[in-house]
Amino acid sequence: MKKRVKITVAYDGTNYHGWQLQNNGVTIEGELNKALSELTGEKISVIGASRTDAGVHSNGTVAVFDTESNIPSEKIAYAVNTRLANDIRVIKSCDVDSNFHPRHCESIKTYQYKVYCADTEIPTKNRYSHYLGNYNLDTKAMELAAAMLIGKHDFKSFCSVHTQAETTVREVTDIKILSQVIDGFDNAIEIVIQVAGYGFLYNMVRIIAGTLVEVGKGRIEPKKIKEILESCDRTIAGPTLPANGLTLHSYKYL
Amino acid sequence: MKKRVKITVAYDGTNYHGWQLQNNGVTIEGELNKALSELTGEKISVIGASRTDAGVHSNGTVAVFDTESNIPSEKIAYAVNTRLANDIRVIKSCDVDSNFHPRHCESIKTYQYKVYCADTEIPTKNRYSHYLGNYNLDTKAMELAAAMLIGKHDFKSFCSVHTQAETTVREVTDIKILSQVIDGFDNAIEIVIQVAGYGFLYNMVRIIAGTLVEVGKGRIEPKKIKEILESCDRTIAGPTLPANGLTLHSYKYL
Repeated sequence: MKKRVKITVAYDGTNYHGWQLQNNGVTIEGELNKALSELTGEKISVIGASRTDAGVHSNGTVAVFDTESNIPSEKIAYAVNTRLANDIRVIKSCDVDSNFHPRHCESIKTYQYKVYCADTEIPTKNRYSHYLGNYNLDTKAMELAAAMLIGKHDFKSFCSVHTQAETTVREVTDIKILSQVIDGFDNAIEIVIQVAGYGFLYNMVRIIAGTLVEVGKGRIEPKKIKEILESCDRTIAGPTLPANGLTLHSYKYL
Repeated sequence: MKKRVKITVAYDGTNYHGWQLQNNGVTIEGELNKALSELTGEKISVIGASRTDAGVHSNGTVAVFDTESNIPSEKIAYAVNTRLANDIRVIKSCDVDSNFHPRHCESIKTYQYKVYCADTEIPTKNRYSHYLGNYNLDTKAMELAAAMLIGKHDFKSFCSVHTQAETTVREVTDIKILSQVIDGFDNAIEIVIQVAGYGFLYNMVRIIAGTLVEVGKGRIEPKKIKEILESCDRTIAGPTLPANGLTLHSYKYL
């Protein structure tokens, strides 16, 4: 009997060309389709909630697929993991209503963008956190700036110009600036920019992070954020930070 | 004029055959010699304080080398880093007395062995932490067991049988069991076994970690540690945990 299975997928995106299936390039979606098809003997196509870019990581992207397999849905995670490289893991699997669509059901996504400041690069940090240099970021100023981004706004200034989105209005529900000393190194601190919202534009979190870092460095005043939003001009906001610092942190269906 | 330069080197050991120079296989020592020789135009051979195994990481291995270069010693870190892959970084460089030998001067080394417990593997953890499975480790029992290892003992039971050491007596000055919830995952916890001492036998920290994990799982009683030490029998202690979980955390010269 046909059933819809919901899976939660964590991955280290370093070696992948992002989530979405491609003709050239190994992707998370492609690897999942292959492993699930092998497991069930059917041609499986997963539908993911979020298409992360090349190099972006995830703690738990939600996806669904339909199958007639008689493998109990809760056992699929365990069974499929043995067919995946160890930088992709299905951390949970369960039955879900056949109407459930991971992109059409309202959800709050939380992303974390990690940056770190230190005298030199720290090799064991580079994979998941972006090295800024020897800065002393003003996290209070970053928090003030972040507060002005929370809410429903036209985020056109914080969106890659390559977007195909119909509207650039989005609602950011929360931004937190978390900082932690990096144990074992002098003058080394990691700052996590945690952004939650109902949905994001192309590169939006990486541009928000890039802009808040400019605020932290004192190059953009916190109060200028309002002006940047109102200008609807991508060139006034900060740079798009690199993919490796970004992790899809969590997903919450409402 | 000839001078001795002390460097502090951090690395992600994943892609290296350990510290020590080899005829076959890329090593940290080999990469440093090559980069420093290119930089100074001399044939440089570094002397390291600690020869980590293949796959082991470091936050700051101390090494020295002699040079007649007129590059100011403090600038060498910056200059040589541009010639190294970004998984090796010289985090500090300075002049040091020509008598200073990183292995012959008394020091306390601190290692961290990281393990984590969760329902499934977490891809972004695997590189620096060893996955144990879905366990609920008894950290109180691990602390009791760890306390019995602190002090000067014959650690023959905690040493690879391949050792060439003249004596298997060593002094462990401290062991801490630190645990932290892994943010973003249900029922996921990382436990850091931090071991400090004047020097260690071959694989000693990985075997201590393997034994303390067995205690945490309830397979070895804490009080049995005394018996394991006294037996001088490697087969009674726990397994040697894999290299990737081990990081040379810090170095302190006395």
